[in-house]
Amino acid sequence: MTGNLHVLSFAAPNIPGVVAAVTGAVAEHGCDILDSQHHDDLMTRRSFMRILFRDEHPMGAGRLEAALAAVAERFRMDWTSRACSEKRRVMLLASRFDHCLADLLYRWRTGELPMEVSAVVSNHPREAFRHLGLDDVAFRHLPAGADAKARNEAALRRLIDDTNTELVVLARYMQVLSNELAGELAGRCINIHHSFLPGFKGAKAYHQAFERGVKLIGATAHYVTADLDEGPIIEQDVERISHRDTPDDLIRKGRDIERRVLARAVRYHLEDRVLLNGSKTVVFAG
Amino acid sequence: MTGNLHVLSFAAPNIPGVVAAVTGAVAEHGCDILDSQHHDDLMTRRSFMRILFRDEHPMGAGRLEAALAAVAERFRMDWTSRACSEKRRVMLLASRFDHCLADLLYRWRTGELPMEVSAVVSNHPREAFRHLGLDDVAFRHLPAGADAKARNEAALRRLIDDTNTELVVLARYMQVLSNELAGELAGRCINIHHSFLPGFKGAKAYHQAFERGVKLIGATAHYVTADLDEGPIIEQDVERISHRDTPDDLIRKGRDIERRVLARAVRYHLEDRVLLNGSKTVVFAG
Amino acid sequence: MTGNLHVLSFAAPNIPGVVAAVTGAVAEHGCDILDSQHHDDLMTRRSFMRILFRDEHPMGAGRLEAALAAVAERFRMDWTSRACSEKRRVMLLASRFDHCLADLLYRWRTGELPMEVSAVVSNHPREAFRHLGLDDVAFRHLPAGADAKARNEAALRRLIDDTNTELVVLARYMQVLSNELAGELAGRCINIHHSFLPGFKGAKAYHQAFERGVKLIGATAHYVTADLDEGPIIEQDVERISHRDTPDDLIRKGRDIERRVLARAVRYHLEDRVLLNGSKTVVFAG
Amino acid sequence: MTGNLHVLSFAAPNIPGVVAAVTGAVAEHGCDILDSQHHDDLMTRRSFMRILFRDEHPMGAGRLEAALAAVAERFRMDWTSRACSEKRRVMLLASRFDHCLADLLYRWRTGELPMEVSAVVSNHPREAFRHLGLDDVAFRHLPAGADAKARNEAALRRLIDDTNTELVVLARYMQVLSNELAGELAGRCINIHHSFLPGFKGAKAYHQAFERGVKLIGATAHYVTADLDEGPIIEQDVERISHRDTPDDLIRKGRDIERRVLARAVRYHLEDRVLLNGSKTVVFAG
Repeated sequence: MTGNLHVLSFAAPNIPGVVAAVTGAVAEHGCDILDSQHHDDLMTRRSFMRILFRDEHPMGAGRLEAALAAVAERFRMDWTSRACSEKRRVMLLASRFDHCLADLLYRWRTGELPMEVSAVVSNHPREAFRHLGLDDVAFRHLPAGADAKARNEAALRRLIDDTNTELVVLARYMQVLSNELAGELAGRCINIHHSFLPGFKGAKAYHQAFERGVKLIGATAHYVTADLDEGPIIEQDVERISHRDTPDDLIRKGRDIERRVLARAVRYHLEDRVLLNGSKTVVFAG
Repeated sequence: MTGNLHVLSFAAPNIPGVVAAVTGAVAEHGCDILDSQHHDDLMTRRSFMRILFRDEHPMGAGRLEAALAAVAERFRMDWTSRACSEKRRVMLLASRFDHCLADLLYRWRTGELPMEVSAVVSNHPREAFRHLGLDDVAFRHLPAGADAKARNEAALRRLIDDTNTELVVLARYMQVLSNELAGELAGRCINIHHSFLPGFKGAKAYHQAFERGVKLIGATAHYVTADLDEGPIIEQDVERISHRDTPDDLIRKGRDIERRVLARAVRYHLEDRVLLNGSKTVVFAG
Repeated sequence: MTGNLHVLSFAAPNIPGVVAAVTGAVAEHGCDILDSQHHDDLMTRRSFMRILFRDEHPMGAGRLEAALAAVAERFRMDWTSRACSEKRRVMLLASRFDHCLADLLYRWRTGELPMEVSAVVSNHPREAFRHLGLDDVAFRHLPAGADAKARNEAALRRLIDDTNTELVVLARYMQVLSNELAGELAGRCINIHHSFLPGFKGAKAYHQAFERGVKLIGATAHYVTADLDEGPIIEQDVERISHRDTPDDLIRKGRDIERRVLARAVRYHLEDRVLLNGSKTVVFAG
Repeated sequence: MTGNLHVLSFAAPNIPGVVAAVTGAVAEHGCDILDSQHHDDLMTRRSFMRILFRDEHPMGAGRLEAALAAVAERFRMDWTSRACSEKRRVMLLASRFDHCLADLLYRWRTGELPMEVSAVVSNHPREAFRHLGLDDVAFRHLPAGADAKARNEAALRRLIDDTNTELVVLARYMQVLSNELAGELAGRCINIHHSFLPGFKGAKAYHQAFERGVKLIGATAHYVTADLDEGPIIEQDVERISHRDTPDDLIRKGRDIERRVLARAVRYHLEDRVLLNGSKTVVFAG
């Protein structure tokens, strides 16, 4: 049944009538809306919508595209529409700590994440991940080094192009992207910050949390921007800690939060549930 | 601004085009949709929607009612539409344990719950609630007793009518309603079950949980039906417990869960976020 | 049974043997330990313990005090011991937003918080709280004003002394304490910070959270120190938010978090579950 | 430093003085208690304790064993004591759904679970788990079949003996153990029940939850007894669901709850944090 399911999502200036115009076009082309969520941000004056619909007629969705393009022009919509069966191509970048990588690969294999893995990239060699069963996955080793940064980023750019990668996931990738590359990947690169923003930024976030004696630690998944810790937040979660937890315990608990927060954020993105709203996001969670 | 905000919600057989027809009518009458959620249940083949809109034109909403009635007939919709400024009249029933009553009254006074309290009813006298500041609230004492049940339910029925009560909340009211009265109030009477359904039913739920050694206890808010523990569930929540918790501790923690679960369920109902779907509910939570 | 229950708690330099010495003294005096928790902080090199015991013999606890004093001197313990039936005297300070005050008073009336309310103090008059049923509670109005601060703090100091107040709770009291008074009340004054520290400090914390687009908001209860937002944290909690929540919704959800976080912190303190550990706390939660 | 850390845990009839006697013996032998938790169950009249201590003297722990044996006899304690560096040998049983197996193996490889994997056993062949990197793990295939049950259980018994397995984990192993084997493994075999007990028992638990329209689903880890769904509960957790979740979504969310609940339960067991208390458990969580 997934075969004729489609997702349409858009952001647009808040012009009255856009919801009726879009749902009207979908209905006229014989498509049945199964689920929809719409929201206006009264401060940014932007409208956001996600529609899941089923194409009941042969060629319905095809002809619908043209009709939607006309509506989109009239309402100045940024929009995407695709069949749910079309999987996005996703590149996973990781470093020494591979808990997020292992988790994303597991969810990909169970079919939970609707994606194709275009490549796994790391500053560590393939052997470092031998327990993750990477035999059927393209792997690229980009060793870090004093002069390697520019060369590695160029290689990364090419690899993204060559593999038709649509989403880049920094799964605890410890190499800071240049502002240029971060800018190029805006809106299609997700990072996991190993702390609850806006609390503890930068390195050793869990050690900072320990020193301060907080009772909860968290993790934050966000789109990458030039300022690494300040991109639009997609998802956050926390876990309770106590005086019994050492910094090592916080790191252990942190791994659990990081992997579930990142996995949720990636799934939301792949299912077209996240729409950018200036420095924030609208997330139509399932 | 709340003055010209309206909420429209409906349930209907799943006929393609209903979303476009309804949102089209809203747009044609110069009303701006600010937030909407729609969902089809593919098993019960029913469609559910909630729309928050702003009436931009004088008399827009008035004329819209007529247009919506026509759409509703065509799509066989069960629907309601009202101004957000119109508060529903709510009757609160309580017994000896008044934590839910106290909480609902507090949330009413802060303006968090958009309602008018039509009356507080109890099998205990007004003096039992002297710390709740009930001076400005209508109070009815219906003492329990061997022969009182039929008489009390008749009084309750009359009071509901006389006070134009639209929603009855059993805020830990320990008098079991007759099947007849429960049936009459279907869809407009919310109960809080002091346990996590479908786990521990009936009396002494927390003692059952203690005996079984569970690690979480919960509470369930649901619409009343003839079978008291089986009505459509609106909201549930849990709290963590340990071996250190005595049955008294469970009761104490239970109070916190009960009051927040009931308050959420009442708010969802008052904001037209809950739609009945057979023995289940669709809740378009905010 | 509560009558002969006692709680003993201490902090001490980490000298091996302290646990055996203290539990030995308790046992020798015919007292039965029902629950105990002990923890060493290997970084601050301090030992912390809480013991709940039952006095099985007449005068057991009385003679025990003397024995404990000797142990305490030997191990340089900071310690307290008291009967669970002895209620601490607690002063509640509030301003315009009284959700925390209302909640603490309710929990006091149900017996959930083992305390006596020594007084309620506010910069607003008694009439502002008329729905809280304060008739049986001492109330002091300390109106704010340009020149009132020093005079009000002097009055507060006297009132704390005159009423034998052991704990001061700032239940959303919006008058900043002077560094002097904050210092005098160190370890016996609890504040609720209406945000998740160390995130958003200062005023308008929820508005800051809204601007940043975070997906969780929280509250923090901590002991007061000269730096208002930096005292030792006792308890924290969060609630999930979404793009649908306006700043007003955050404030509404914040009230729920604030009252439950503050109530837990006050209960932990009253039950001798919180021990200061430098700028942090050890909390032996129940 | 872990090298000279030891854990002692015991259950005993509630005889006053046991805490002092045990901690006294530990102190006399020059061992420093770093963390301890003790609890009396006033209903079952049993005492439970867990002590983490550091052996400061060469041979301290060795001589301590003898002293503890004497105390244990006097107080009729069931007790265990071991060095934290000694890892328990754990056998993992799985069937087609390997999310729990994958998760436990990952946590073992990161050092989070202090165990040795004695074997992985499944009714599916090794190839079914080729992405889990099992090359360095002993694997036994026990194909299910009409007449295979008795033969497989005999093989399992021998394997448990031959591999010195101390804990058996049913990581979504779908072959029901016989009452005999379940009885033999009492207290050293952990199962994950893919629902929140005591709610939905037996097969298709998530489908039952969907039909009932509950708003939370959960999972339960418990010790195996003859009655598979009724063993002492070690850990439970829940996740929020909504009308948007299909039975498949519940299964997906269920996987996340199951793996984290099972991992916690296994860690608690391996760290000697779980003590049996009749049909319940005492869990001294970290």
